[in-house]
Amino acid sequence: MIQTQTKIPEPTVRRLIQIASLLKQEIAKGKSVVSSSQIGKELGVEANTIRKDINMLGGAGDASSGYHAARLAGKIEEKLGLQLKLKACIIGLGRLGEALINYPFFHTNGIDIVAAFDVNINKLETLKTDISLHPAYEMEDVIKIKNIEVAILAVPLDEVEKSMAKLLGSGIKGILNYTGAILPHRTEEGIYIRNLDITGEMNMLKVLLNNRN
Amino acid sequence: MIQTQTKIPEPTVRRLIQIASLLKQEIAKGKSVVSSSQIGKELGVEANTIRKDINMLGGAGDASSGYHAARLAGKIEEKLGLQLKLKACIIGLGRLGEALINYPFFHTNGIDIVAAFDVNINKLETLKTDISLHPAYEMEDVIKIKNIEVAILAVPLDEVEKSMAKLLGSGIKGILNYTGAILPHRTEEGIYIRNLDITGEMNMLKVLLNNRN
Repeated sequence: MIQTQTKIPEPTVRRLIQIASLLKQEIAKGKSVVSSSQIGKELGVEANTIRKDINMLGGAGDASSGYHAARLAGKIEEKLGLQLKLKACIIGLGRLGEALINYPFFHTNGIDIVAAFDVNINKLETLKTDISLHPAYEMEDVIKIKNIEVAILAVPLDEVEKSMAKLLGSGIKGILNYTGAILPHRTEEGIYIRNLDITGEMNMLKVLLNNRN
Repeated sequence: MIQTQTKIPEPTVRRLIQIASLLKQEIAKGKSVVSSSQIGKELGVEANTIRKDINMLGGAGDASSGYHAARLAGKIEEKLGLQLKLKACIIGLGRLGEALINYPFFHTNGIDIVAAFDVNINKLETLKTDISLHPAYEMEDVIKIKNIEVAILAVPLDEVEKSMAKLLGSGIKGILNYTGAILPHRTEEGIYIRNLDITGEMNMLKVLLNNRN
């Protein structure tokens, strides 16, 4: 596993991750040089903040002539350890889990989905996929045997607690939470959880639309 | 449309939204009183920050004896205008869009999905749903006629630009972006965009797992 030496504050890490995604997007469009003000505008952040963030990487190029997009993206990935490859599983094969199992995003971001679980045995028998499917009660064993590091949680809300109980003892290191439930950022077992906060984003949109009128 | 009188800073708004979701979750579990330290622990934030956030609502109860969960949730929803009902459409009926069209979350959060669009006419003819389906070229007209306020964007990455071009002239007010593309927080036309940042959350997980080892 890659080691990051730097202790970069979380808001900066968050923005650097977004900057890297944005740079890749611009590179795909054929751009090779990007300025801090362009990046700032896209992310809704002051150009000065972007320059400070990038300076924390050390030696990432000169802001005055714009940043070399590919070099800066590479520098961010290296410093933050984003090239890390992870073995993952999908928990819950409802409509969302089924959509996620074939979602190209994970593979292109170094996430290798090696198993999926559901309580419904029929579902496991009828679903067509190359990924190995297992009943939910095998979750702990399969995660241990396959050394799976990340669980992508996509069960219905009323199954979240049961799934979490199984995951806590499984040796999993991180959870990407798609369920809409708010789970703690770090469990007592040391598992890191990232909530894809759909409710939160929809509600932020409501606040913005309220204030606009 | 509901008017919010308060000018609460965005990080506070963000946390208040999360607090409201968390309170509803606790209420569903049968809890009626919740303390600031419990909330803080769940959200990974200092209890003191939580108390300050809640104080910004004015008269939301006493922290010393814990907050009355239902009353506080109601107060947050009222102050931020979260009861707002919105008419929405889904753009893109691939696996993700198809999963989203029946996702109960939207309805329970006051989001009424009244139309969906896809470039693939076959898809429109075979998909079984009560929601009215339209070819992508009808997007601007249908959004105008039905007064649709929010677009839930779920097209593949290489269709994002085309869809955005159509949406910009449609009179849409907000976009919930599920595509993985980073779009600006506000367009020049005044459309608010919220990015569901799957790449970002996965990369934050990588940084956390890197630093742990």
